[in-house]
Amino acid sequence: MRVVVSLSGGLDSTVLLTHHLEQGDEVRAISFDYGQRHRRELDWAQELAAACGVPHTLVRVDLCAVTRSALTGHGSVPHGHYAHESMKQTVVPSRNATFVCLASALAISHDMDAVSIAAHAGDHAIYPDCRPMWMQVMQQAVRMGNWGASQFELLAPFVLMTKHDIVVRGDLLGAPMHKSWSCYEGGAIHCGRCGTCVERREAFELAGVPDHTEYASGGAA
Amino acid sequence: MRVVVSLSGGLDSTVLLTHHLEQGDEVRAISFDYGQRHRRELDWAQELAAACGVPHTLVRVDLCAVTRSALTGHGSVPHGHYAHESMKQTVVPSRNATFVCLASALAISHDMDAVSIAAHAGDHAIYPDCRPMWMQVMQQAVRMGNWGASQFELLAPFVLMTKHDIVVRGDLLGAPMHKSWSCYEGGAIHCGRCGTCVERREAFELAGVPDHTEYASGGAA
Repeated sequence: MRVVVSLSGGLDSTVLLTHHLEQGDEVRAISFDYGQRHRRELDWAQELAAACGVPHTLVRVDLCAVTRSALTGHGSVPHGHYAHESMKQTVVPSRNATFVCLASALAISHDMDAVSIAAHAGDHAIYPDCRPMWMQVMQQAVRMGNWGASQFELLAPFVLMTKHDIVVRGDLLGAPMHKSWSCYEGGAIHCGRCGTCVERREAFELAGVPDHTEYASGGAA
Repeated sequence: MRVVVSLSGGLDSTVLLTHHLEQGDEVRAISFDYGQRHRRELDWAQELAAACGVPHTLVRVDLCAVTRSALTGHGSVPHGHYAHESMKQTVVPSRNATFVCLASALAISHDMDAVSIAAHAGDHAIYPDCRPMWMQVMQQAVRMGNWGASQFELLAPFVLMTKHDIVVRGDLLGAPMHKSWSCYEGGAIHCGRCGTCVERREAFELAGVPDHTEYASGGAA
């Protein structure tokens, strides 16, 4: 299968890329520079793609112009657990849909079969556009909206897995998870306190896999 | 109704903006700088929004990175009638879907009700993402993919009209159609020969409305 992998450079998409390569898929990676605070993930995405010999496309899309999310520099990033109500401040409307559209454009332009995203079960509560039903509708929109795309697939192989399932899978595949970037703050190392840092630590702990990430702060809020 | 109008700066969206203002809608306009050859339309979009006292958001999205369309500088723009097979070279995969996603992000961020696009019946043959059925699916994707968007509407008031119906409507409303930009080439005045120029001239002719556009070339290919 020929797959465009949406590679944010975070833990989940790092495992996703490894997963598709291990399956023997022909892969292209795509990342999005949307004015995020946590640009470190983009450096890692580029480095990972190069290390895997995978063509990598970086697309600039100015989500800052259209949103008021804490992720694009409006307001402060909330601390604490990822599933808390406050994390909705980090929701950028239609972000995932925009990324799927752009990834599908790349896939269709290169006669590829699918786009794959790293949505997982833990995302469903915060991001309605990470749910299987949404994925079905979006796949249909891409199929109907483009020439020769009636077989296009929007894949989300981790959509029914928890984040610690992903860590277990990544560990089995030998994915370079420790080099991935999760933190929503813009620091030099992971802050250890923002929603994604808390979620990341927890995932390693529940998976029983050693976490080699360097965190600035030891305790969760 | 509070509506985000997708304003390319072309003839159709110029009439669309006028249409929504005439209806008494509260309007925001959004335009996309996607590396198109025909950037003149963006200047006009900005000018029109300012003249109407409508807030205008210009979003940069690097479609050149993901596509190989003639519209983004890959290959030459085909001449002749818009409905010809060759015009498919001007199709940017998922372009309309990307724009709808970004416009919906703006709408949701500002608690607005709808996004309106200027798709018309003449687009259906070339752009499958301008058809009513696609619009329904895409509206559903936005509703399901965002918090508090279950009433979101994707409007296309001209979707069953021909382009000359739009010219008739624009003429009735006194829309400043002569200042809009259609040409897919990057010249100082309309080339008169590319698909959209041919279509534009034809629309004025069929509508029986004087065409005050200045064209470089008199005849269609």
